[in-house]
Amino acid sequence: MADSVPSDSVGLVTPRIFASEDPLTLQCGATLPRFDLVYETYGELNASRSNAVLICHALSGHHHAAGYHSADDRKPGWWDTCIGPGKPIDTDRFFVVCPNNLGGCHGSTGPTSDDPATGEPYGPTFPAVTVPDWVHSQRRLADHLDIERFAAVIGGSLGGMQAMQWAISYPERVRAAVLIASAPRLSAQNIAFNEIARQAITSDPDFHDGHYRARGTNPDRGLMLARMVGHVTYLSDDGMRQKFGRELKSGDPREASGVEFQVESYLHHQGRSFSRSFDANTYLLMTRALDYFDPAGEHGDDLVAALAPARCRFLVVSFTTDWRFSVERSREIVDALVRARKNVASAIIDTEHGHDSFLLPVPRYVDVLGTYLRRLADEVAAGGDANTRGAAADAR
Amino acid sequence: MADSVPSDSVGLVTPRIFASEDPLTLQCGATLPRFDLVYETYGELNASRSNAVLICHALSGHHHAAGYHSADDRKPGWWDTCIGPGKPIDTDRFFVVCPNNLGGCHGSTGPTSDDPATGEPYGPTFPAVTVPDWVHSQRRLADHLDIERFAAVIGGSLGGMQAMQWAISYPERVRAAVLIASAPRLSAQNIAFNEIARQAITSDPDFHDGHYRARGTNPDRGLMLARMVGHVTYLSDDGMRQKFGRELKSGDPREASGVEFQVESYLHHQGRSFSRSFDANTYLLMTRALDYFDPAGEHGDDLVAALAPARCRFLVVSFTTDWRFSVERSREIVDALVRARKNVASAIIDTEHGHDSFLLPVPRYVDVLGTYLRRLADEVAAGGDANTRGAAADAR
Repeated sequence: MADSVPSDSVGLVTPRIFASEDPLTLQCGATLPRFDLVYETYGELNASRSNAVLICHALSGHHHAAGYHSADDRKPGWWDTCIGPGKPIDTDRFFVVCPNNLGGCHGSTGPTSDDPATGEPYGPTFPAVTVPDWVHSQRRLADHLDIERFAAVIGGSLGGMQAMQWAISYPERVRAAVLIASAPRLSAQNIAFNEIARQAITSDPDFHDGHYRARGTNPDRGLMLARMVGHVTYLSDDGMRQKFGRELKSGDPREASGVEFQVESYLHHQGRSFSRSFDANTYLLMTRALDYFDPAGEHGDDLVAALAPARCRFLVVSFTTDWRFSVERSREIVDALVRARKNVASAIIDTEHGHDSFLLPVPRYVDVLGTYLRRLADEVAAGGDANTRGAAADAR
Repeated sequence: MADSVPSDSVGLVTPRIFASEDPLTLQCGATLPRFDLVYETYGELNASRSNAVLICHALSGHHHAAGYHSADDRKPGWWDTCIGPGKPIDTDRFFVVCPNNLGGCHGSTGPTSDDPATGEPYGPTFPAVTVPDWVHSQRRLADHLDIERFAAVIGGSLGGMQAMQWAISYPERVRAAVLIASAPRLSAQNIAFNEIARQAITSDPDFHDGHYRARGTNPDRGLMLARMVGHVTYLSDDGMRQKFGRELKSGDPREASGVEFQVESYLHHQGRSFSRSFDANTYLLMTRALDYFDPAGEHGDDLVAALAPARCRFLVVSFTTDWRFSVERSREIVDALVRARKNVASAIIDTEHGHDSFLLPVPRYVDVLGTYLRRLADEVAAGGDANTRGAAADAR
């Protein structure tokens, strides 16, 4: 952490644990006898408990979205650019809740947790979880916090899928859903990249069919490769050109051995640090949740029908150079919402940073998000709910 | 091979070996005391030896571009769609020469060959080779075949880079250069994908720093991953959607384990068969040659200056859905050729098959290539060479 906390930071934060002692039956048919969700909150819940915002994280995210855990932290939470006093997700006005997803590896029950049935870590026996499973477990957290309705459920990428699922599964409990750099379901190309990442992990001899901890090993190489694949696909070609060009690490191309271009060095570094901090079984589980998300699938591939139950308003944001969750995929969501006569606003942001843009302080993006949420905060403060109950009317 | 050879096939072909016994000093400074190039030829060299066409292969290609090696072959050579009697590269009119590149693993001297200095296979000690090195070694093959000037040097992808280099290095020996789905140099994103492939190979514990053969192993897992990465980037998102959609291999998403989507099954199959047929050290070497190709680099990043020595005419072809060697990259080549006052024709082909399009029988592509080469064959038959010596004049 900087010597002094920046004035727009939420400052020091402490994670909390929500222990859900009731069994949870998952979509795959398995039942978890109990589970923990680790979460953080920023800002204050108002008297009418109407200003809560749920942040849903993406593939490699977690509950630590903003602020610092200690004075020694060099970096703040993963979405500190957007969450804080005066920031788009304004903690002076909203009570922000961010849990780590079920199956995660940052404190929520997941493959690294002990299975009560055996007393041993779940490891690869942790059941498959889906986006609807996550939303159901988050609903329990909402109940625990006595939040009847979220002012907003907000997420980027896989987080946007959760926001969409919230709107579908719990229409009365969401005032606004904000879907950023998301998609109604993955394309074959996206699934293929996820499969390469999984293959990198499972083919690592240190993976041991997922029992690596019991064997005292870790599939570092596989995780590193998986992260490298992810990273390249989260950046745009243009963005990489600007960031790295074709610059050599050493000056002389004749000394050709090992890592030579700057971009290689960067990817190695990113991959290595990820392999030290992320659980391989969790990575497999999260990518599978991504692959299987497909709300239209249960409605004969009709996204309009899938979105019909939603009562909230929607903001859909996409980025021009995001080729993994392209503008076109967000447009599919917007078009379906319009056809389903929902209240929907959308913005396409010009940026050079690809899918990663949703984490970056891109001025127009920050402005769009901030403006939208400021209006929402005003309405919440005024106690109004015209835009949720009257959503269909608004869109007509 | 089919029961009867199709009438537009070159039929049964037999590879030949060109043994170059003179030392070859490479760009990296190392010298090969001698080398072999394995090659195939299709069609007949005319009396004036003016109808020869050189085919340069891409990353995972080889000398077997057309026809069959035996009556049992299930598949013809890799570019049989374009090479044969009456096909765009018409073997009734052209004498087609296709070598396996130096450093390859299909019969030319490479990492799997014995180093005369030690009597042991080169393995990872085989020196780094570059596109100019390949062109110089191919020039020796041309001398051996007594071909003073190629009617055309043709290549897709990395093969197109060799065609460009031929035009620069040996301007008097090329009548036409055909660059298909190519680029003047790789982008940072392309280098990043190559680096992931290399990392997959070198981090495989069976790689043994490249000495896998001496250890009786093979980095199958790494090669498989490398090929999977390549494959996804050679296909377009649209093409994959059409080919695979989101179809599940088994019907039930609840049976979530292992390979579930059709696209995963396809990639596994492609990766596995590749890992059985391709040498890992060669793969590393070929991707490095790709990364370092940069003719403009020696001219202060001025591609116009780099192309100034060329005397031949050019055909530059690109495909709309090729995102690894995009239309924009071909446009850079065309623009530089125009500014360098060269004779250049170009075509952008609408297709859904991404980078792989250059290997497929896309009608307009086949038509463009065939028309261009038919006119060239006519001129060659008429003994004319106005379009090479007078290239600059033509472009004015």
